[in-house]
This record gives sequence, structure tokens and C-alpha cells, in this order.
Amino acid sequence: MNRSLLAGPGRIDRYAGQGFNEHVTLENWQDAPFSRWGFSHVSELITTAPIHRAGAGEPPVRFPESTAGELDRCSDVDDFLRATHTDAFVVLHRGALVYERYFGTFGPQDRHILMSVSKSICALTVGVLAGRGLIDPRESVSHYVPLLKDSAYGDASVQQVLDMTAAVRYSEDYVDPASEVQQQDRVAGWRPRLEADPADTYEFLMLLRRAGEHGRSFQYCSAGTDVLAWIVENVTGARYADVVSRELWSRLGCGADALVTTDSGGFAFANGGIACTARDLARIGQLMLDDGEAGGKRVVPSAWIGDTMRGGDPLVARGSAYQKIHPNGSYRNQWWVPGDARGTVYAAGIHGQFVWVDPPTQTVIAKFSSCPDPVSLASSRAHTEGFRRVVDLLESA
Amino acid sequence: MNRSLLAGPGRIDRYAGQGFNEHVTLENWQDAPFSRWGFSHVSELITTAPIHRAGAGEPPVRFPESTAGELDRCSDVDDFLRATHTDAFVVLHRGALVYERYFGTFGPQDRHILMSVSKSICALTVGVLAGRGLIDPRESVSHYVPLLKDSAYGDASVQQVLDMTAAVRYSEDYVDPASEVQQQDRVAGWRPRLEADPADTYEFLMLLRRAGEHGRSFQYCSAGTDVLAWIVENVTGARYADVVSRELWSRLGCGADALVTTDSGGFAFANGGIACTARDLARIGQLMLDDGEAGGKRVVPSAWIGDTMRGGDPLVARGSAYQKIHPNGSYRNQWWVPGDARGTVYAAGIHGQFVWVDPPTQTVIAKFSSCPDPVSLASSRAHTEGFRRVVDLLESA
Repeated sequence: MNRSLLAGPGRIDRYAGQGFNEHVTLENWQDAPFSRWGFSHVSELITTAPIHRAGAGEPPVRFPESTAGELDRCSDVDDFLRATHTDAFVVLHRGALVYERYFGTFGPQDRHILMSVSKSICALTVGVLAGRGLIDPRESVSHYVPLLKDSAYGDASVQQVLDMTAAVRYSEDYVDPASEVQQQDRVAGWRPRLEADPADTYEFLMLLRRAGEHGRSFQYCSAGTDVLAWIVENVTGARYADVVSRELWSRLGCGADALVTTDSGGFAFANGGIACTARDLARIGQLMLDDGEAGGKRVVPSAWIGDTMRGGDPLVARGSAYQKIHPNGSYRNQWWVPGDARGTVYAAGIHGQFVWVDPPTQTVIAKFSSCPDPVSLASSRAHTEGFRRVVDLLESA
Repeated sequence: MNRSLLAGPGRIDRYAGQGFNEHVTLENWQDAPFSRWGFSHVSELITTAPIHRAGAGEPPVRFPESTAGELDRCSDVDDFLRATHTDAFVVLHRGALVYERYFGTFGPQDRHILMSVSKSICALTVGVLAGRGLIDPRESVSHYVPLLKDSAYGDASVQQVLDMTAAVRYSEDYVDPASEVQQQDRVAGWRPRLEADPADTYEFLMLLRRAGEHGRSFQYCSAGTDVLAWIVENVTGARYADVVSRELWSRLGCGADALVTTDSGGFAFANGGIACTARDLARIGQLMLDDGEAGGKRVVPSAWIGDTMRGGDPLVARGSAYQKIHPNGSYRNQWWVPGDARGTVYAAGIHGQFVWVDPPTQTVIAKFSSCPDPVSLASSRAHTEGFRRVVDLLESA
């Protein structure tokens, strides 16, 4: 009997004698070894809302097929995937699906939590609405969300929030229970609540306070994306998941619905809570490569994609851990822009979630992982090297 | 702005001044008026597991199109749908989609909770496994689930559970907080837990006790279906949602994944927790009409479908509320069999969920509703008359 099949949040004692006594819960699903099951079964741990693919009955758009070429024969790629706790790995080259690997029980139909790759999807949705004139990135947050007037974000511009240069009293220490990021997890339903926690994410955001002057320096802060999602809701009068569905997901030819976790206040956890299949995540990278078009149709304004891919000001990120890997790197519109000569951009989430886009070779790499550490320089380096190796192999193909 | 769009479990005060202050919660989602939102957003209230449609990238099977004919012009059909709190209504005639109606914000992509229509889907899955020799309906429950040996179900046969003639100390009073059916709701995560409740559905089932001799009389008892699901898990070594996906849902040409609610023990709520689109539910009725085949391929054994459609022994249901509507009615393999000359069979769930199958006209009717009462004779009569009116119109077409 397959152990992993039974690794539910469960009374596994009914399988007593089969050597299986793991028990995945809301307390442990983000920790190894429980995370391997947890990251691919998030709807069984937290409530979720669907992000629909195209209308009922519409077939998904198939990727053109092609051979994997060198990739299939390279043991170092295999070593990289195993060393970095990979659950799924999908490579598109010139729009064709050239390499696809799944590990453990994770398969093409399964949806993996994206963590902060969700942020990059939120910003593409903001880009669509900006293109329609519903959001002006130069406006203040409180212009769109009056309830945030007295919060840290009230007088920040939308662009500052998109680029994470808003100054917020917020600790993004994933392993410190006293940090704001862990409190936000609890409020979002990702961890068991504590009595003193705010009722929901809306209230949590309203209580955040400023910690300096906006626009001066890069401060990675997950809450900013949820502020963007609240803006999306207010300017459309619709719920976040429905807007992402209507404006983005349903227009990419996706093979499956995505989903997003929701809290007791009905708030969709925009900063980390989307889950989707590996192939569908690759379509997000392809959308970047194709300048915001999918299937020959405009989805996100070209100007928004160009602005994102050109990156932000590397000076504001001086001293950041990020620049230890990418010395000229910046963060623009919720995407990481290494500032290399290739024009690479990527989206990244803790525990090894990635979409990597290499324009010169027209390569998109989507990777789901269950790395034990949320973040580490070693993991960032290993992933950067692994993705570059894949791109090298395709360049020489 | 559309009120219903915002009717989330939520801090609707952020929409203050718009006249909207409803708040859907785990306490009230089964009660009108909150149920209208709750029944179509179950994944936002309870954790869920996916029941996958066909493999990634496979297109759904489209229904042949046809005209609605008489149905479109009949105001009494419209009256029936409005009077019975309809959310969705789909009619297939000779395999073609001839009539489709949606109300409120519910649409073709939305998934509605099936309530006890879920039971009929469970039994079709049991039928598949019986056809493969994995389950023998004549065997005792404890043969497949030793942990249930001391429970009410231990010495009941699988067939008795399928037909609901197991004798169990269990009140199916939906509005009595002291009833077993409400306790089971709480254990399943459908209502807030009470301290003394069993940990999960597995434990709940083990604690049920016998109340007489099995096989003597029909006793509608939701817990029986969960016993069947536990048998399904034990004979396959796989989780219930995965088996329903593999053996049934993925083989019907469905347009969307279904989902099923899960409890803290990882148990899928087989007796009432499936949600799916209206069109996909109609495919279940079509499967019955087509003697267990879908798209020309065998899915459920013909013998199982035949045995179900012939019905059970009406004598064991003597005195039941059911026989006030269908005097010759029986319950066989978790389907209702009125015992009329037409050979009608149907699946039904509280608050107005139905699949109605009329063999002479080759008609399938799927209906989702948010009726305020869970069950009532008046509602059963109104639905029976409404479905017969639709069938009449198609017969004369």
C-alpha cells in the first residue's frame, strides 16, 4: 500500500501495523516531512475559493509537444531536482512542453500551494485593471481603500506597494511565532488562531503601522499583496478570486481551476494562498514571455509587462539578502528582476516555488518543491544555478 | 453592485452603506437566507478534497445541442422553478441538453452542494468495485472494516447498508441539535464542534449502536453511506475522493472537477458532502439511463444498474413518509425507486437537490435548490409534480 496515499490529516491508526503514523494538521503542514503532503492538499487543511479556468465545456489549450533533447539525458538536472525537494518541474521552450517531471505522489492534476508566487499573479491582475483605468499606481492606497487610511499603507502609493518600498512595522520571520507574518498566517486560517488575533485579514491590515518613510528602501512584506487584493475588490465590486478568474486565469487556456485559501472574513489570501497545477503555472511564465498575450489575445497590457521586466531601482534593495545572489537585482510589480544581461524575471515562494522566465531562449520553468527551510541563501543559489543549467542546455540545443 | 457577489463569510462592514449586512458562517450557512450563498460556496466554509475530472488537458465531452421546444414556452415550469427556490436546472432529453436555467448568481461553472444525492454517487462507486469482485454486498460490514465490528453496522450486510435496512440508534432530525445527524454534521466540520463530540467521522461511526434487527425495515440513516465509503477505502487502499475520481468522475466526460468536504480526520463526507456543476450532475443521471455506460464505454456494471432500477422491497418501507408520495416506493442501492409504471429512479438531497431519471422519454433532470426547509411533504410533492410536468412536455414533443 502506498504510504503517501494515506498521509491525510487523519486517524491513521486505522492503518495500524502498516508503519504509518504521520498525521498532517494545521499545526504542522508547513513543516517537513508533513509539508510534502500539506503543500499539495491545501484545500483539505484550509477553506478555499475556486479561481476558474475557461467557461464550462471549453477545452484547455494544449501545449505543442516537442522532445526534451539534452534535458532528458542530463543527470545533473536530475540531481538538482532531487537535492531541492522537487514535487513538480515543467519546462516550456519556445512555447512547447519539452520537459516534465513529477515526484512522489504529485501528478499533473494536482494543485500545489504557490506561496509568494501568488503575489506575482496578483500584480498581473492589478496590471489588467490599471490598463482599464480602474487603478492608477500613482494614487495612494487610501484613495481606493478608505478603511486603510490610518494604517501603514494609507499614504503609500499603489506603486510603492507593488514594489515593496512601503515602510511597515512587520517582521517577515517565518519561524518566529511573535512575528507579524506568523500572526497573518493565523488570521488567514493557515495556523491555529490565538485569542488576541484580529478577526480576519481586513482587520489585520488596518492595524499595521508605518515604520519610516515610504519609497526609500525595499522591505519584503507579504501584507502588501493583500492590500493590493483589497484594492482589486474595491475597484471592481467583486471578490478577489472572481476577478483573478475573470481577468486572468480564464484567459490563459488553463487545464484546471486554481484555488485560493480564504479566511473567516471571506478574504482570499492573495499574498501566498493560490494553488494550481504545474502546467498552468508555466502558462503564467509564458504570458510574461509573450508580452502579456495568450493564444494571440491581449490579456495584460504590454506596457505593464515591459515595466515589470525592466525591473525597479536596484539601489533601494541595497544590503538585501536578495542582492547577495543578484547584485543588480530589484523587485518590480511583485516580480523578481535579477538585472542580468539576459533580462531574466522570476516569481518565487518560500519552500522552493518558482516560475523562471528566460527571454533569450524563450524558456519558462515552473517548479514546485517541499524544501524544509522556508528561505535560505543556499537554496536560492541552488535554484538559480539549476535554472541556469536548464537554460544553458536549451541554448545549446 | 450585486449584493450576492459580496455575500461572503465576511466583514461586509467594509461595504457599509450599501445595505448589505449578511454574514455567512459555519453556524448559519444551512439556513435561509444564508444557504443560497452557502450551498454554492461550500469550499469557503469547510475543507474539501478534489474529485478530478479526466486527466489534465483532456477536453470535456460536450452534450449534443437541441431545442428546448415546449419547455421554453411553459410558464408553469418557470413558476415551479421559482416556487421551489431553484439555483440551477438542467434537462437532458435523449442525451441532448434541451433546457438549462440558472438563478441568482449561480452559473454553469459553479458547484452546488449535493446533500444526499452524494449517497447515490457513493453507491455507483461501490457498484464498480463490486463488479470487480472487491466488494460482495452479501458480506458483513465488519469483514471489510474490522474497526466497525462492535458498532451498529458490524453484522449488517453491505446490501442492508446500501438499502438502508440496517437498524441503528440514530435520529435523522435535521433541526434537533441533540440528534445524531446534527452531531455527525459537527464531527464532519459542517457545524461548530462541541467538546464532547467524537474526534472525526471514523470514530463517530464506531460509536453508533444497533437498535433492533437488521433487514426488517427501511430506516433512512445518513451514516450508512459513510460506512460504505470506509469500505471503499479499505478494499482499495486509497482515499475515498481519489477512488470516486478514478472509477467514476474521470470517466463521464465531466466539465469540471467535483469536490467533497473533509473532516479533521481526513474523512470525505460521502453521505452529503459532494459538490459539482449542474451539467456534471446530469451526467450521473445519463449514466443510469445508459445502463452504466458513458461515451460508449462501460463504467458501472449493467447488472448493478439494473438491480438498482428495479428497486427494492416496498414492504420494508411501509409507513415511511416516502410512501405517502410514492405508495409503491423503495430505496435500493442508495437510489429512490418510486415503483411507478415508468421505471422512474431518482437521487435526492435535503433542501431540494435532485437527479430525476425517466426511462420512457430518455429524460434526465438535475436540480439544485436552496429550499428553506430541509425536508417536507409539500416540497417532495411539488418536486415530483414539477418533474412529471417536464417529462410530460417532452413526451408530447
